Amino acid sequence: MAQEYSGRFRRKNSTVPISNYLEGIKKGDRTVLAKAITLIESNHPDHFRAGQQLLKDIIPLSGKSVRLGITGVPGAGKSTFIDRFGTELCKMGKKVAVLAIDPSSTMTGGSILGDKTRMESLSREENAFIRPSPSSGTLGGVHRKTRESIMLCEAAGFDVILVETIGVGQSEVVVRTMVDMFFMLTITGAGDDLQGMKKGMMELVDGIIITKADGANKENAIRTRNEYSQILRFLRPATEGWQTKAYTCSSITGEGIIDIWHVVQQFVKITKQSGIFFERRRKQTNDWLMTSIVEKLQQSFFQNEVIKEMLPVIQQDVEHGRLPVSAAVEQLMKLYLNEK
Amino acid sequence: MAQEYSGRFRRKNSTVPISNYLEGIKKGDRTVLAKAITLIESNHPDHFRAGQQLLKDIIPLSGKSVRLGITGVPGAGKSTFIDRFGTELCKMGKKVAVLAIDPSSTMTGGSILGDKTRMESLSREENAFIRPSPSSGTLGGVHRKTRESIMLCEAAGFDVILVETIGVGQSEVVVRTMVDMFFMLTITGAGDDLQGMKKGMMELVDGIIITKADGANKENAIRTRNEYSQILRFLRPATEGWQTKAYTCSSITGEGIIDIWHVVQQFVKITKQSGIFFERRRKQTNDWLMTSIVEKLQQSFFQNEVIKEMLPVIQQDVEHGRLPVSAAVEQLMKLYLNEK
Repeated sequence: MAQEYSGRFRRKNSTVPISNYLEGIKKGDRTVLAKAITLIESNHPDHFRAGQQLLKDIIPLSGKSVRLGITGVPGAGKSTFIDRFGTELCKMGKKVAVLAIDPSSTMTGGSILGDKTRMESLSREENAFIRPSPSSGTLGGVHRKTRESIMLCEAAGFDVILVETIGVGQSEVVVRTMVDMFFMLTITGAGDDLQGMKKGMMELVDGIIITKADGANKENAIRTRNEYSQILRFLRPATEGWQTKAYTCSSITGEGIIDIWHVVQQFVKITKQSGIFFERRRKQTNDWLMTSIVEKLQQSFFQNEVIKEMLPVIQQDVEHGRLPVSAAVEQLMKLYLNEK
Repeated sequence: MAQEYSGRFRRKNSTVPISNYLEGIKKGDRTVLAKAITLIESNHPDHFRAGQQLLKDIIPLSGKSVRLGITGVPGAGKSTFIDRFGTELCKMGKKVAVLAIDPSSTMTGGSILGDKTRMESLSREENAFIRPSPSSGTLGGVHRKTRESIMLCEAAGFDVILVETIGVGQSEVVVRTMVDMFFMLTITGAGDDLQGMKKGMMELVDGIIITKADGANKENAIRTRNEYSQILRFLRPATEGWQTKAYTCSSITGEGIIDIWHVVQQFVKITKQSGIFFERRRKQTNDWLMTSIVEKLQQSFFQNEVIKEMLPVIQQDVEHGRLPVSAAVEQLMKLYLNEK
């Protein structure tokens, strides 16, 4: 079934009826899901229209998963954790999707998820879907598509969506705006112990997971966990009514992995009861709308043909003191608004 | 002369011919200068048009000053430093203007420069102009007007423009984009010694001034200066070709005050020779234009009557899952662009 779609889509992608996508997604077909994500990521106008229709159709099917954010510096054990955690969930009968946001992909020379062997065990699971991060595109572009990818995965029946990001720059702040619960992974003695850990970061997550708590490292990991937990009690929790804590686990022995899932379940239960869960999603959707408006507005302006032609001329006038900035802005706005 | 203008302007501000402003500014009339700044700060459409014309007329007269940024946490001695430094410059025959950016004015309950007695000595100088910061308005609005105020002061013949800001939040980053040279003021033992000082902040300024280097405190101040200077050698300087250093001075004894002016002169000489001075101003103007475009674009969109009416409806549709975000954005853009 997946093969059939795959073949047909490859021949003339833009003319495939939306109903084909919709049916495939409803059946949980992973090949169709991957194609659908590619469709919404496309900047081609035909694809855009088709993507819009598809998104509209799948809205009623979306929203039913738990959206989990996972961050951590390189070396914190994110891949091995997601591999083990996801595999355990699949064994419980859950459907698990992994999406990545990688703002540094152009710097590191590729996607953090480009190599599927990073999550060897999970990628063999029937109920898992792993989506590599786009290797290019602005952070804005990437996370706009990530939100829509989450919705498509949900429509395809995935219960748990893991949004992975490298703990650098502003990517955690972006991930926080699109997930229900957010974990930071860390290891002991990596220089990001308590001293190096920023208060702001600790106030952004709902849990700190100290990985590699096995063998000779286990004792250290437990000590670090206790130190974190102590500090976390004095910080403002990221989610009202939920005490952020630290946990230990081992992706090798599997110890503590299922406990993390129990923590997630507890979190979802408490926040759904208090209404925080739904209030956060409502607010996230609204923020997403506002951010998208501002992005689109700028795109529309700076890609306007008249603006593209006149901006360099006006810039010269401003730089050489022939035109005040505010007058230049007025002039450009007039050109922009009369053009359409 | 100043009185006459003042009286006439008060009666019917918007109908005063621009030539009156222009003449007054050319004569260096401080009352007219104050009125002109009020004019460009006004949001009234008539004032806006008049202000635009005035700015256009004064462009050829502007740009000839040294623009100095002064930051520091409350208690770092900014007011007393500016009072003494400015007074010394006036005594040398310089014309000194002081402008303030105060993003926290709504929180602190008033302008940092509201009380002119803060700079008692300087405010008595014939060649000084002190402009209190607006007590309201967004940070964006305030700094847009600050740039234009700088130009008006320059057109009125002021040689040294001091732009003062409280060292909190993002205001330093904003000030850096509008000055030639940037100083941070600090005192010893105030908790913002080396330990508390952020590397980012040290890489943003062209000099660190340790104030209150007098009496029993002098020795400590010199020690702190040496410690800073040592660290600064390992950091990236804010200005290419200029080694950021630390200095001491006392606004009470006056020791080191004139030396700061010599440092400024040296900085201007070096950066003008290398071209960095002019390149920075060119870049600043261009960045200002770009920021202003984005601000204006958002203002135009969100204040559009149709958008004001339809946005809440569309927000509801998005929040309740009846409309995808991207479709909502398309719909809003169509409404916005057809309206005009």
